[in-house]
Amino acid sequence: MTGYQDLRDWLNTLTKNDKLAVVDRPINKNTELAPLVRLQYRGLPEEKRKGFLFNNVRGEGGIKYDMRVATGIYASSREMYALSLDCEPTIESIDKRWVEAQLHPLEPRLVESGPAQEVVITREEMEKTGKGLNILPVPVEIPGFSGNIRTSVPFMTKDPKSGWVNVGTYSAHMVGKTKMQWEIERHNHGWAHYTTAKEIGKDLDCAVVIGGPPVLFYVGSAKLPFGVNELTIAGGLVEAPLDVVKCKTVNLEVPATSEVIIEGKVSLGPLEAGNSYGEYNGYMAHDVRMRPVVNVTAITFRKDPIFVHVMSQMPPSESSKVRTVSSDNIYYKFLKYDCKVPGILDVAWHEISQASWCVIRMKKINNTHPWQALHLAAGYDAWWGKFFIAVDDDIDARDVESVIWALSWRVQPKRDTEVIGGRFAGLDPSAYKPDASHEEKLMPNVTGASAILIDATRKWPYTPVSLPRKEYMENALKIWRELKFPELSLRQPWYGYELGFWPQESREDADFVVKGDFESVGKRLAARTVNKP
Amino acid sequence: MTGYQDLRDWLNTLTKNDKLAVVDRPINKNTELAPLVRLQYRGLPEEKRKGFLFNNVRGEGGIKYDMRVATGIYASSREMYALSLDCEPTIESIDKRWVEAQLHPLEPRLVESGPAQEVVITREEMEKTGKGLNILPVPVEIPGFSGNIRTSVPFMTKDPKSGWVNVGTYSAHMVGKTKMQWEIERHNHGWAHYTTAKEIGKDLDCAVVIGGPPVLFYVGSAKLPFGVNELTIAGGLVEAPLDVVKCKTVNLEVPATSEVIIEGKVSLGPLEAGNSYGEYNGYMAHDVRMRPVVNVTAITFRKDPIFVHVMSQMPPSESSKVRTVSSDNIYYKFLKYDCKVPGILDVAWHEISQASWCVIRMKKINNTHPWQALHLAAGYDAWWGKFFIAVDDDIDARDVESVIWALSWRVQPKRDTEVIGGRFAGLDPSAYKPDASHEEKLMPNVTGASAILIDATRKWPYTPVSLPRKEYMENALKIWRELKFPELSLRQPWYGYELGFWPQESREDADFVVKGDFESVGKRLAARTVNKP
Repeated sequence: MTGYQDLRDWLNTLTKNDKLAVVDRPINKNTELAPLVRLQYRGLPEEKRKGFLFNNVRGEGGIKYDMRVATGIYASSREMYALSLDCEPTIESIDKRWVEAQLHPLEPRLVESGPAQEVVITREEMEKTGKGLNILPVPVEIPGFSGNIRTSVPFMTKDPKSGWVNVGTYSAHMVGKTKMQWEIERHNHGWAHYTTAKEIGKDLDCAVVIGGPPVLFYVGSAKLPFGVNELTIAGGLVEAPLDVVKCKTVNLEVPATSEVIIEGKVSLGPLEAGNSYGEYNGYMAHDVRMRPVVNVTAITFRKDPIFVHVMSQMPPSESSKVRTVSSDNIYYKFLKYDCKVPGILDVAWHEISQASWCVIRMKKINNTHPWQALHLAAGYDAWWGKFFIAVDDDIDARDVESVIWALSWRVQPKRDTEVIGGRFAGLDPSAYKPDASHEEKLMPNVTGASAILIDATRKWPYTPVSLPRKEYMENALKIWRELKFPELSLRQPWYGYELGFWPQESREDADFVVKGDFESVGKRLAARTVNKP
Repeated sequence: MTGYQDLRDWLNTLTKNDKLAVVDRPINKNTELAPLVRLQYRGLPEEKRKGFLFNNVRGEGGIKYDMRVATGIYASSREMYALSLDCEPTIESIDKRWVEAQLHPLEPRLVESGPAQEVVITREEMEKTGKGLNILPVPVEIPGFSGNIRTSVPFMTKDPKSGWVNVGTYSAHMVGKTKMQWEIERHNHGWAHYTTAKEIGKDLDCAVVIGGPPVLFYVGSAKLPFGVNELTIAGGLVEAPLDVVKCKTVNLEVPATSEVIIEGKVSLGPLEAGNSYGEYNGYMAHDVRMRPVVNVTAITFRKDPIFVHVMSQMPPSESSKVRTVSSDNIYYKFLKYDCKVPGILDVAWHEISQASWCVIRMKKINNTHPWQALHLAAGYDAWWGKFFIAVDDDIDARDVESVIWALSWRVQPKRDTEVIGGRFAGLDPSAYKPDASHEEKLMPNVTGASAILIDATRKWPYTPVSLPRKEYMENALKIWRELKFPELSLRQPWYGYELGFWPQESREDADFVVKGDFESVGKRLAARTVNKP
């Protein structure tokens, strides 16, 4: 076991690493909580972001909740993400873990009991006491625009026929003390389970897992293929099976140390209209599509429970970090291991773009090679990606400046770009008017939305990068440190290197010049014959 | 006068503002100087970058130069640029100054004498003593790749017929004690003067201005129109005429307080082959085109002169900052004042891309409006720009994250992009093979290189931005400060706002939710009739 099963252990680790901000002053969950934490994503560099623990949570009229609220604790930075897996905070370490987890998933382990069920409230009790979902301090995410409160944490179901367990970050919107709406896209795996339930005519068991291990949220938000049990990938990520307990009122097994579990049954009865909530593209979803209703059958929780809320919507956020890391690695694994494209070095989905801007770094072997990678990446999922960009191995795919440098001088738009159609529009507001029909929102203009593929690799040998050769920069680094100048964080490239074209006479000129003999170069040039201006 | 005429005053101001790093240890100008300063551009955030003054400059074999060397002093950051104009370090303040300078240029003022001529060395003396250009501690810019040493500071000429004075940052490559090569593109304004000189059959007078006022370098690097005397724009920028003195051996007037002036005559005799040097696109130029020869007629300088070198090549650098600021403002002024396009708010050339990535921020009035701006910007100069991107007024054109957010969700590539041809290739290595003919390097494939225009504005009303409304974020900011959390540097957008589509029922739902009444929303939804899934 290399990561965390128990949220309490994880919070202790955050505290030890100065990554948890504890707020003891009263905070209103409807008007103050989410805006306060939001500030760090809009105003602090990633390395300064933290998780937040609110010990004194209030509601309308100052009423105090028994539960505390933690948010931003899963992945407010890549460093926190790595910490939760107990691995180095490098892209390589996280990548390695993700690829290994996909190649070697681990089945969960069923245990007899767990803290997640220290307290059990049945539906009967809720109806008697009037204390149901309203005991949960669910924050309003976007005060002023959010039309509801919801969980956006793992939502578990099991296919009633095949037994395939699915964990998806599908929101459960609170619409009554014992009633939720299930916000589910028709292409989501959970919907496939609902369809099976309709076939056999029996309500679908479900469970909302609040305050499970960080890794459960990571896999629940990942674009893993149809038929994969996310619990097994979660086990792979932490290199040990996840401990699960049987639910009290539904046929599902959930992580044993979770803070709060909402058990329920997805009704096969009439759907209900949805309303607006904040989406990860940075706009409010006005998704009024009909949603299935969930009748809550029990709420179970730990003693002194901590309600965990996930910061999502406008990127960067906690959910954008999680989504980006998993997308990077799922596409990387797909191109490298499933499609066996040679020379794939990195795939980077840029966090601010969420599902739109995908950069593939590769060691190119010929000029068809980038196109193979671009077409495969675009083909993996019709929902995902609008700008697919292939770059050479000397470009840092994760540094947007480096990518723009490649776009600037390695692309001829007429030759190196290709616009493709046949994409789902999904959440993309550029593809349809806001009051369009659902059909139009799915596939605008009959043939769908569009994307652009850009080959930003060098098409032939280039002259060297215009920075001093490595030996001079390394020597300069020694002098820099000797002079006690400020600490550097060097960006790629920070020294010059050859890119295939560099004539012998240029090499010789450079040797003369570095020895201070510019006059000899002058004589060489006067004698040199080249083609005319 | 609001800026600096005299470099010594400017260096004092840098010192007072902790923006000058003084190095007293011996530094080899061929192998150590440029690499050391380069580290700051690849490894420090802009606000920590400084100018450098080297008091102990050495050459091959440890020989010590009499002159000191300053570099990075003109514009290692936007803050330094603003400081040199004595204006606020905001984009708006610098923009205002640049627009005013173009609208109200100021003629220079001729003065009797100036420190620039405290010491005069004639060609005769140089030939006698063997001390000519070799007394200047010209640093090797890219040790290991640079094929020569050169000045890349203002190079002045006057049209022999019309008297039009031009200041261009054209390099003068040292090829002998009294001989330089003039690196000049055939479309540069200086080349027009050379052409006139050929017509009248008389060598062209020229002067290289080393250590002039910062503003001279700014205008010399700017893409100002044909026929404009850059000295008048420089005067406009500092809100006072520049003081100039008559040169000793050529018919030109140069800034009176310059550190070093190289006077010379551009020969009408045979051209000579050039060789390699670092270019601003981040690659070595292998520009072996024939260059005019300059015969040096005098070197004049101040007592205890400071040789000023400009950090250029791989961006960001000093020269990329200068080029970006002037390009921004020249295009802004062109679109707004010359073309009179309404609603132009900002033009941002991204520094890493140098001449490639141009973002136009505008208050759109209809869906043809962005295309008008895009076509005009592309048409201003066939050398400049590969990605032209129009964005709405709520996008920060200077924040690449904000631009990628716009590209991600406001663009349909099939509908909103247009690839154009007919561009000069110039320095763009993606447009031709490195050993292509000069003709091919200018206009590859007969019809030239290509560019892409992207309309990244919203085409219709959008739902609100998924961040809490301003009032909640402002309140959160108060709590943030009360809790003494780390200082914020807020990025646009940091609160939610409406974008044209927001139904009354959504507004009402949001009001219920923010008061904690999620159950009432549930009842409203159960009664709401919408179209089916």
